[in-house]
Amino acid sequence: MTESELILSLRQHLRNEHPLLVKGIGDDAAVWNWDDKYYALLSVDTLHEHWDFDRVYHAPVYIGYKAATSAISDICAMNGEALFLTVSIGIPRGFPSGYIEEIYKGIRRVEDKYNVTVIGGDISPARDLWLSIAVIGRVERERITYRQGARPKDLVCVTGDLGGAYAGLKILQREKAVFLQNPSVQPDVSEFTYIISRQLKPEARCDMVARLRELNVLPTSMIDLSDGLAAGVHALSKASGYGMHLYLDRLPFHEQTKRVAELYDMPLTAFLLYGGEEYELLFTVPLSDYEKLKSEPQIHVIGYVREDGQVLLEDPFGTAEPIQELSWDSWKGEKASAVSPSSE
Amino acid sequence: MTESELILSLRQHLRNEHPLLVKGIGDDAAVWNWDDKYYALLSVDTLHEHWDFDRVYHAPVYIGYKAATSAISDICAMNGEALFLTVSIGIPRGFPSGYIEEIYKGIRRVEDKYNVTVIGGDISPARDLWLSIAVIGRVERERITYRQGARPKDLVCVTGDLGGAYAGLKILQREKAVFLQNPSVQPDVSEFTYIISRQLKPEARCDMVARLRELNVLPTSMIDLSDGLAAGVHALSKASGYGMHLYLDRLPFHEQTKRVAELYDMPLTAFLLYGGEEYELLFTVPLSDYEKLKSEPQIHVIGYVREDGQVLLEDPFGTAEPIQELSWDSWKGEKASAVSPSSE
Repeated sequence: MTESELILSLRQHLRNEHPLLVKGIGDDAAVWNWDDKYYALLSVDTLHEHWDFDRVYHAPVYIGYKAATSAISDICAMNGEALFLTVSIGIPRGFPSGYIEEIYKGIRRVEDKYNVTVIGGDISPARDLWLSIAVIGRVERERITYRQGARPKDLVCVTGDLGGAYAGLKILQREKAVFLQNPSVQPDVSEFTYIISRQLKPEARCDMVARLRELNVLPTSMIDLSDGLAAGVHALSKASGYGMHLYLDRLPFHEQTKRVAELYDMPLTAFLLYGGEEYELLFTVPLSDYEKLKSEPQIHVIGYVREDGQVLLEDPFGTAEPIQELSWDSWKGEKASAVSPSSE
Repeated sequence: MTESELILSLRQHLRNEHPLLVKGIGDDAAVWNWDDKYYALLSVDTLHEHWDFDRVYHAPVYIGYKAATSAISDICAMNGEALFLTVSIGIPRGFPSGYIEEIYKGIRRVEDKYNVTVIGGDISPARDLWLSIAVIGRVERERITYRQGARPKDLVCVTGDLGGAYAGLKILQREKAVFLQNPSVQPDVSEFTYIISRQLKPEARCDMVARLRELNVLPTSMIDLSDGLAAGVHALSKASGYGMHLYLDRLPFHEQTKRVAELYDMPLTAFLLYGGEEYELLFTVPLSDYEKLKSEPQIHVIGYVREDGQVLLEDPFGTAEPIQELSWDSWKGEKASAVSPSSE
């Protein structure tokens, strides 16, 4: 069972309604009435040692940075603006205080860069290090964007490039293995600095939310790619009831990602479809917005919304195959099996 | 270093300001502008296996219940109304799904009893079971109550009774030890059902927030007693800059709590001052409100605010001694040492 399947199964035990609530469990963030102009948004995201980061190569300042930006990303996915964070942290016994301070310095960098403020939190003793960050945001009522809402013939767009965070992880894991065998070897990762920063210090695409507003483009549906492109297109398809048709040669990637795929003799497509932790935005827009978007260097039109429910990837030879519904967690394997409860 | 000291030391690395923010880190909940009538409130609270609960005697339905009510209690302490919850949960690998469902059934009971709604959350793999619950609430602007605000001669009041949750824990720990030695022995806790329910299924005092409104009483300061009475009076004293004078014979306790103190040959005063996890409210009111409160069975006037900064407890013989500033976490010992970072 994946995390989202488990959440949906647990959801049936809950109430799921409130007079002030607009949208509860099931989108990137929950939505309720703030005032006449705004909806309030709330999302929470957790990073856990061993599953989400490795202290050997994730320096504490980056752990704090990534925990905060990954949580903010969910507010961007609603086309909203992040305002406040709370930071809950589990700290193993005897952990040096300087390490915890470094984590908070990373969060401070996010405060400054994203204009957000930590307003609370708590600290628990724990066996492993973990951070759970809740984000409060808001969005003008007429600009809210859900996972639901794509219509046939809408264009499917993605920001930035794909697969880099996973490619960076592969390099970091390789360097860790080398280090463990021979600690005197200095790692040389100079040819992979871009993808390593994608893994260690990902950014939420609040800049893209602002850019869409400047361009006067209102997406019909949106999600962030924390679980990878394949999971994203399936989520938007299910929410809208329509399918999606992507073109392989339109999927954006960095040269370093391609080099890692070659290095490991793995298909580049796997990196682009299943690599997660990217926090790029996947969204749909009406066909009529094409002129506004076609010259944007950070926005790529990668396909269109199909009237039937099929989710397909077409290769450059014109062959379209179904995109497997597989999330980053399942791809990574370990994390998925860890949340899968055994039968009693 | 206690949790609150660590939070204050980490706070200096953070920004602590935002145009919409009214009150950030440092009270029971953060406060920001909702609309002309209300402030919004946000608090987060974590329960962690081994430190905050023991799966041997905390059934999963109670773990969910307690995690939610302890988080809601922080909203009550601001004189507010809880609205929404998010539930982040860390689940050990291979945990039975039925167990997790029971936790959510406990949370569902809280939804119904407190008229709150879970609107989001996430699930992480973890080595130990933990729950971190964020609560969104609101309070009418003119009724917000901070830790700060007590004035000399104000009355110090407490709801319910004190020390019961700790007394219940002592009995549960005793029964666990008996069970581990001889699993065939049936525990007999029939004479301690009240204090055991205080430990396993604590309630947030939203009923007292409503009652104060009915009585037209607006506290000058308030805090919840999750860290015990001693920590509570010291926190209200520090925030106001004044002291407090409590009378030992006014402190409310249940007969079963007294019996446990006798059973363990411990001073009852220790249970009343340092027992935590109670979620009773400690607050101050102007002397002129005495008539409104004196007949309330659930509200006890236990002392007054001193002009000097001393925090004293007076025994029935007229001897007043300083109340040691010691929180429930320190009292419990293990938890406090676990969050105490060693020097690097």
